[in-house]
Amino acid sequence: MKEISRREFLIGAGAFSASFLLSKFFEISSVQAKVKPQKWPWPYEKLDPEKTAEIAYNEWYRIFCGGAVISSIFSQLAEKIGEPYASFPIDAFIIMEGGVAGWGTICGSLNGAAVVANCICGPRIAGLYDGHIIASNLMKWYSETELPIYVPKNPRANKKSIIKTVSESPLCHISVGKWMKASGHAYRSPERRDRCARVTASVAYELVKKLNTWKDGEYDEELEWYCPSDFGVTGQMNCMECHGTEIPVAPQPKK
Amino acid sequence: MKEISRREFLIGAGAFSASFLLSKFFEISSVQAKVKPQKWPWPYEKLDPEKTAEIAYNEWYRIFCGGAVISSIFSQLAEKIGEPYASFPIDAFIIMEGGVAGWGTICGSLNGAAVVANCICGPRIAGLYDGHIIASNLMKWYSETELPIYVPKNPRANKKSIIKTVSESPLCHISVGKWMKASGHAYRSPERRDRCARVTASVAYELVKKLNTWKDGEYDEELEWYCPSDFGVTGQMNCMECHGTEIPVAPQPKK
Repeated sequence: MKEISRREFLIGAGAFSASFLLSKFFEISSVQAKVKPQKWPWPYEKLDPEKTAEIAYNEWYRIFCGGAVISSIFSQLAEKIGEPYASFPIDAFIIMEGGVAGWGTICGSLNGAAVVANCICGPRIAGLYDGHIIASNLMKWYSETELPIYVPKNPRANKKSIIKTVSESPLCHISVGKWMKASGHAYRSPERRDRCARVTASVAYELVKKLNTWKDGEYDEELEWYCPSDFGVTGQMNCMECHGTEIPVAPQPKK
Repeated sequence: MKEISRREFLIGAGAFSASFLLSKFFEISSVQAKVKPQKWPWPYEKLDPEKTAEIAYNEWYRIFCGGAVISSIFSQLAEKIGEPYASFPIDAFIIMEGGVAGWGTICGSLNGAAVVANCICGPRIAGLYDGHIIASNLMKWYSETELPIYVPKNPRANKKSIIKTVSESPLCHISVGKWMKASGHAYRSPERRDRCARVTASVAYELVKKLNTWKDGEYDEELEWYCPSDFGVTGQMNCMECHGTEIPVAPQPKK
């Protein structure tokens, strides 16, 4: 798997920015005039990963994975800094639950983390790329790591120990399904719920570690996975898990 | 496939709300005190689906699928109503591109639509369920419909005609991959880009139709797909497409 250097990513982004400027000039500027310009990046103060994870664990039981990651970070920053965090509609992001409304697509903790990273570090449309890299690399970390890592102060289940699994995917269906298979616990069991709350806490912990490094000006990770560059279509890294040995070749650019 | 009646969904939600109240009472209330309470649902004025789709099509070329759906609706409401739309950090949602940072998970137009529906109609944590139902049913509609439907005023490619495909999935990788296979166009081609911009516009169109019906007090759709109830794990409806004939049975609840 090829890592994309910051330079390569920025070169691609340069072409992107140029097309943005053109399109903006011709027809889109009227749309943007109606919304308040954001000051990117948002103000950030370093947070305690442990405390953040604990909040995320408990918030899972209120607004599930996506909302919990957002709440664990934005609620602390609302207290420390105020706006724009205080007005962010955190609870609406409960919809990220179960891979968006139970459809098993992206794990909500990653979906929520992507929103957090791109608000705090800013979006690439503003010429800021760390939010994109943090969101993407967190998906790779999640896919490759034995989860859950974080042990809450007062676990609601799995009190003696918990089985850890590697999802090899950012998808809820696959991540949850592999853990259920390994543990034997049903979807609606207290053990599965505690597991997903711990995964959410583990993602919040890792995200805050990256954001703190970024705040210190020391975040220099490369983009570790960008499927369109390597395989000519969006996707994750283990094609065979769904395709078996018959992996389609993407149509190639015309010369 | 079983449809979940509003009544069944609300009964499940009732147990959920009770556990929410308990958990909130014991330990989470301090977190929520730090953020401004939202007034759900957000104020809404009916929009023109055609105009919204046209904005979404053009915004795709600026901030891609997820950001474009959010922008097409929130920018108009920012003009008509002002807050809370004007301060929403639309551009951060560019990260939903390509199934979140190019990973091919949920199509960004659906991810963005889920956020829009749950801001405007409110989240189920507030006892409001239409946002959840709209987001979920839009995913089913997307999976079953020949897309793209919307024809922009000034298409940037596919000017004479465009191939339509049914994704049978809300996932970017599958939706884009099936269209690329049917059309023969590469990922980075103008044709594929125009196709995704049109899909985004089609989703924005359909979402506004649902929101307008909701505003009129006439939105009464049932939840059409909720995998955890039927199969004991989150997921989409066509297990065999990835699993082949060896579909695992989810661990069952202990009696």
